[in-house]
Amino acid sequence: MRARVHVTLKPGVLDPQGEAVRHALGSLGFEGVGEVRMGKVIELDLAEGDPGAARDRVTEMCEKLLANTIIENYTVDVA
Amino acid sequence: MRARVHVTLKPGVLDPQGEAVRHALGSLGFEGVGEVRMGKVIELDLAEGDPGAARDRVTEMCEKLLANTIIENYTVDVA
Repeated sequence: MRARVHVTLKPGVLDPQGEAVRHALGSLGFEGVGEVRMGKVIELDLAEGDPGAARDRVTEMCEKLLANTIIENYTVDVA
Repeated sequence: MRARVHVTLKPGVLDPQGEAVRHALGSLGFEGVGEVRMGKVIELDLAEGDPGAARDRVTEMCEKLLANTIIENYTVDVA
C-alpha cells in the first residue's frame, strides 16, 4: 500500500523559501507570479493492506514526526 | 489561476532524507514502512487566466528553475 503525504505551511506563516523562488522567477522574466508557497511531499511504502488502517497509521506518523503541526498542515492520500 | 508543482527524485536516485525519515519512523515504533521518498510541492498564484497557457508557463518555470531535470521529475497541475 502506498501513501502520499502533503505537508504545507499554514496560511499566514512566513515562507522565505517561497519568497526566494518568487523573486528568482521574476529575475528570469516570468511575470504575473503572485504568492509562491513551498511544501513537502512524502511518499511511503507500507506493508499495511487495509486503506483505513494505513490512513490512520500515516496520520499518526504525521502527528509524531512528519509535520510540525504548530505551523504546518498535512493531508494524507492512500492508494 | 493556481498551479501546483510536484518535484520528486527520479527512481534510482539516492534519497538520504527519505532514508532518514524511514529510520526515524522505525525508531518511533512504526513497523512495516518500506521505502520513503521525499519531494517538494510548489504552489503558485498566477495572473494568467488561461489554463493551457498557465500550464505551459509553469512547465517552462520547472525546466528553468523549479526542478533539476537531471535527477528530478516534475508534474504540473493547474486549477
